[in-house]
Amino acid sequence: MNIQAYISQICDELSETVGHVCNDSAEKLADAIIDAETVFVAGAGRSGLAMKNFAMRLMHLGFDTHVVGETVTPSITEKDVLLIGSGSGSTSSLVTSANKADAIGVTICLITIDENSPIGKLAEVVLPISAPSPKIDRDVGFRSVQPLGSLFEQSLLLTLEAIILLLMERTGKTPESMFTRHANLE
Amino acid sequence: MNIQAYISQICDELSETVGHVCNDSAEKLADAIIDAETVFVAGAGRSGLAMKNFAMRLMHLGFDTHVVGETVTPSITEKDVLLIGSGSGSTSSLVTSANKADAIGVTICLITIDENSPIGKLAEVVLPISAPSPKIDRDVGFRSVQPLGSLFEQSLLLTLEAIILLLMERTGKTPESMFTRHANLE
Amino acid sequence: MNIQAYISQICDELSETVGHVCNDSAEKLADAIIDAETVFVAGAGRSGLAMKNFAMRLMHLGFDTHVVGETVTPSITEKDVLLIGSGSGSTSSLVTSANKADAIGVTICLITIDENSPIGKLAEVVLPISAPSPKIDRDVGFRSVQPLGSLFEQSLLLTLEAIILLLMERTGKTPESMFTRHANLE
Amino acid sequence: MNIQAYISQICDELSETVGHVCNDSAEKLADAIIDAETVFVAGAGRSGLAMKNFAMRLMHLGFDTHVVGETVTPSITEKDVLLIGSGSGSTSSLVTSANKADAIGVTICLITIDENSPIGKLAEVVLPISAPSPKIDRDVGFRSVQPLGSLFEQSLLLTLEAIILLLMERTGKTPESMFTRHANLE
Repeated sequence: MNIQAYISQICDELSETVGHVCNDSAEKLADAIIDAETVFVAGAGRSGLAMKNFAMRLMHLGFDTHVVGETVTPSITEKDVLLIGSGSGSTSSLVTSANKADAIGVTICLITIDENSPIGKLAEVVLPISAPSPKIDRDVGFRSVQPLGSLFEQSLLLTLEAIILLLMERTGKTPESMFTRHANLE
Repeated sequence: MNIQAYISQICDELSETVGHVCNDSAEKLADAIIDAETVFVAGAGRSGLAMKNFAMRLMHLGFDTHVVGETVTPSITEKDVLLIGSGSGSTSSLVTSANKADAIGVTICLITIDENSPIGKLAEVVLPISAPSPKIDRDVGFRSVQPLGSLFEQSLLLTLEAIILLLMERTGKTPESMFTRHANLE
Repeated sequence: MNIQAYISQICDELSETVGHVCNDSAEKLADAIIDAETVFVAGAGRSGLAMKNFAMRLMHLGFDTHVVGETVTPSITEKDVLLIGSGSGSTSSLVTSANKADAIGVTICLITIDENSPIGKLAEVVLPISAPSPKIDRDVGFRSVQPLGSLFEQSLLLTLEAIILLLMERTGKTPESMFTRHANLE
Repeated sequence: MNIQAYISQICDELSETVGHVCNDSAEKLADAIIDAETVFVAGAGRSGLAMKNFAMRLMHLGFDTHVVGETVTPSITEKDVLLIGSGSGSTSSLVTSANKADAIGVTICLITIDENSPIGKLAEVVLPISAPSPKIDRDVGFRSVQPLGSLFEQSLLLTLEAIILLLMERTGKTPESMFTRHANLE
């Protein structure tokens, strides 16, 4: 198969999957971000990269934002939000962070395949994504041609991109105002 | 607008943009990766995150892969490939890396909006993506609803995901064999 | 006080602390590194930076080396070594990694203040550093003028630098041969 | 040789080198940090790790701090300081950042072996460290037993640790107040 054939399959899978993202959950996630003093994001592996992708745009929008594990990330408090992206909702290091955050009284939000996962049970807001997972035996109505958690990770990334558009609408921020905050030393 | 309305717009923009990715260029990129002793990837900001996303899967496929700037990234030699993702093709730090690589005789590949950019001129393989850019005045036939380089960055990521499927086909690797290389300490 | 007064205090504290590093433990650590197929290093916060500092030099020496959590870090196997730097020996995310590694049969090495910590109990080789800690109530014979875990982190870093000199002697590597592996795209 | 013999050599080299750090330059560096709206730090390779080590403590002290190249690092303005650690003072990617910062009117500070380097010429404050360098032919009165830029990198790190003590004195911050800002999700 050539790349256009593969691209077509990926786009179909992706549209199908993100087409099920729930409007209400997304609104609640946007509310939690707007209400937080600081937004902390966390994720492992490729889901972690999607969370960083989102954090960068939150910063461009003027939200005080940090990635768990980066150099200047401070302590989290009960006024903050911890947003986790995790297909399984059970990655050990993220469960640890979620438990610590929960004990502090932090608002936890989760984007996941599995609402009933350990992190899902701690989260105030859960946005489910109906993608297959190598770790979870689950019928999503089709079989992805893509390996491992790729379809979840792509769906996570695109869902977060759409939340950026929601947040732009809500805060009245323009691409121009966002560009003034864009890193300018590279 | 609600998130489903935004998701629909993003998916339409994305399908339109990646629908123009050239089969031949993608094959040449896959060839360059297969022929290289080691694959080095580089990118700045959110394009850099898309390149890391790709590097992780290359590693799962068994390719010796490094991200420029990470801790254990060694020196590059003329047997290696440097794959850069850059919308403008002119990000200073990446131009510097490309020039150094070129002087060493490294094969340079570029995924970019602008084929005629400084890095484009050094690259043996260029895969163009027809997306709008905040830095380049250019008509792509429509105006993205998304801020800054978002549509390029998403297209870069999905194009690389499709190249992973190409490489799986070419190398005969399965999701199962890829999973055995997946990080197992998190 | 001026900076020379502070530098003098830091150097005194540091010499006193690393002066107690045990020759035998250091030899065992060097043995474990030489015998491993791949060396994985891990640490949180500033201890994590010291481990990355070490990983870079191991790579220069030609050891196959990875930092837990970086992009192209593969799965660990029982032929590998996991070297952790942790003052308390009880950082949650590192305990999680150590438990996973232990279940796989990986050789675990630890540089720590507390030999009897959770990770200490899993480790085959423990190199103790006699520094004060904000998390451990313990008399090391003096009170550091430095905040938090600074003296441990500095001692960890210098001990690892001395292990590099041990490894150079053992492997016959020269600075010149190391320089050829040094990253050359920055 | 055993590790204590190597540790002793490293401590001697290090004391000798940081013993020449200039009180006046250190005061000027501390002034620049205190006067800045935001502190940006940058460095490549192991010098970059030393700068991250410093950035983490600046954050603990309550300074608004960012590492160039990390996810949520915003744009720099003329009210900010860019502090670079670079042995040669001529690393391409850092020269690029320094030139961009200079054009914006940012205050540039440099810790380096070579005051007359390209970045040295742009910097308002230069703190010289008299260490040998693999890139600079220069007599520092002795030959380091350590490879590549190790002695510079260690001296950079310890000098920055002493500047933390200066800043604690100036701002009246205690280890206890610093601990409340320490990352608490790991």
